[in-house]
Amino acid sequence: MCELLGMSANVPTDICFSFTGLMQRGGCTGPHRDGWGIAFYEGRGCRSFHDPSPSAESEIARLVQRYAIKSLMVISHIRRANRGRVCLENTHPFSRELWGRHWVFAHNGQLQGVKRLPLGFYRPIGTTDSEHAFCWLLDRIRTRFPEPPRRSAVLWQHIYALTQELNLLGVLNYLLSDARYLYAHGGTQLSWLTRRAPFGRAQLMDADMTVDFQQETTPNDIVTVVATRPLTDNEAWTVVPPGTLTIFSAGERVATFGP
Amino acid sequence: MCELLGMSANVPTDICFSFTGLMQRGGCTGPHRDGWGIAFYEGRGCRSFHDPSPSAESEIARLVQRYAIKSLMVISHIRRANRGRVCLENTHPFSRELWGRHWVFAHNGQLQGVKRLPLGFYRPIGTTDSEHAFCWLLDRIRTRFPEPPRRSAVLWQHIYALTQELNLLGVLNYLLSDARYLYAHGGTQLSWLTRRAPFGRAQLMDADMTVDFQQETTPNDIVTVVATRPLTDNEAWTVVPPGTLTIFSAGERVATFGP
Repeated sequence: MCELLGMSANVPTDICFSFTGLMQRGGCTGPHRDGWGIAFYEGRGCRSFHDPSPSAESEIARLVQRYAIKSLMVISHIRRANRGRVCLENTHPFSRELWGRHWVFAHNGQLQGVKRLPLGFYRPIGTTDSEHAFCWLLDRIRTRFPEPPRRSAVLWQHIYALTQELNLLGVLNYLLSDARYLYAHGGTQLSWLTRRAPFGRAQLMDADMTVDFQQETTPNDIVTVVATRPLTDNEAWTVVPPGTLTIFSAGERVATFGP
Repeated sequence: MCELLGMSANVPTDICFSFTGLMQRGGCTGPHRDGWGIAFYEGRGCRSFHDPSPSAESEIARLVQRYAIKSLMVISHIRRANRGRVCLENTHPFSRELWGRHWVFAHNGQLQGVKRLPLGFYRPIGTTDSEHAFCWLLDRIRTRFPEPPRRSAVLWQHIYALTQELNLLGVLNYLLSDARYLYAHGGTQLSWLTRRAPFGRAQLMDADMTVDFQQETTPNDIVTVVATRPLTDNEAWTVVPPGTLTIFSAGERVATFGP
């Protein structure tokens, strides 16, 4: 079982607290046995760290935890390999450029026969189902919209339609970003939580760690965290119904598409 | 003046020594005033670190120096901005996927009117001349070769022809990789050096640091280092004539195209 973690915020926010929770998860032989990766948007740029190996990862994971990179949008993934061997090119999140923007994708689940879906422009570098699905998704978006559509809702609707197609193939929990919005699809399992004033204390489920967000925030901050499973046990997470695509911007939910 | 640093090796090799030399360079107000970046190939994957800000960079630069990532091919760049503001998306090296491979590009120089060159598929995320030139180069390669040509020499010849076109626009010192070869173009200034047995001691020009490569290598190791200017003062660097494209693989020069 892979674990996803995403963040959308209206002010640059670090993800240290949630990342610490995430790092506790992922298997019995180690906290993140088959690698992990994280992508931070910073303006139009995107900074990402990937680590396929448990020994190497600790160094970079420590950097990420300590260094407190602040970002408006983050996508992170801990991998337990089911398809594709453990190596750097198979480590999520994957990224490609479309319309001069960084698109980033991380996926949890298996998609039966996804590699039979034809690809056009984008091609996988590694061998995972997930990267193939991502390339297919971008190809289809690009074919439909050679230029970005004026109205975001038109794009969202198209992404939802493509997601429904992919979802027929198996388990599709994903986090996707086009550098503007965070798209979170819960095929079987996904939860999210928006924190805003008045802020309170949060207690991680997976580690003995509490944060008092009132100390860390200003009254105008709005931050949404999306995760495979809730990360804290004293806050009200929204568990999305299977087949739901939720779209976030600047820390808030802006749209939901679902059955 | 930006500084380029590249490496090609026949066994996974760390670049700590040369990177330490490089980090000393780049301007009077700090060792790498307008950011720096480095990309390490690892199998088909590519691990890259970028840092636009001097304060943040130190932490990541320290990681890279300390962590000794071993790779067969590395491209690194220290930036002093002339076009495009200082921000993450303007920080070299740039990367894109073509034929399911990571292509990476870093450039030193200015190219007059490069932004008038038409783009097709690839579009810049940032605002530098360099990224525009890279997108144009990949577009042209892709148009000519929708699939990778069987014979590498055909590709090399095409890259050299495109390089000559770009070179007419100004100063074009670059390092490029298609995940298999390291392409180094010296428009005005570029040097390289191949180290092989019997290995000796090397003394950095920019820092008080010496390495005895005999302690660090096996007799079969072959490692080429490419840099804007020689990094050591006791080894025989090859200074390439202006307009020369040199191609390296597994630590050795495999082809040269020049006037």
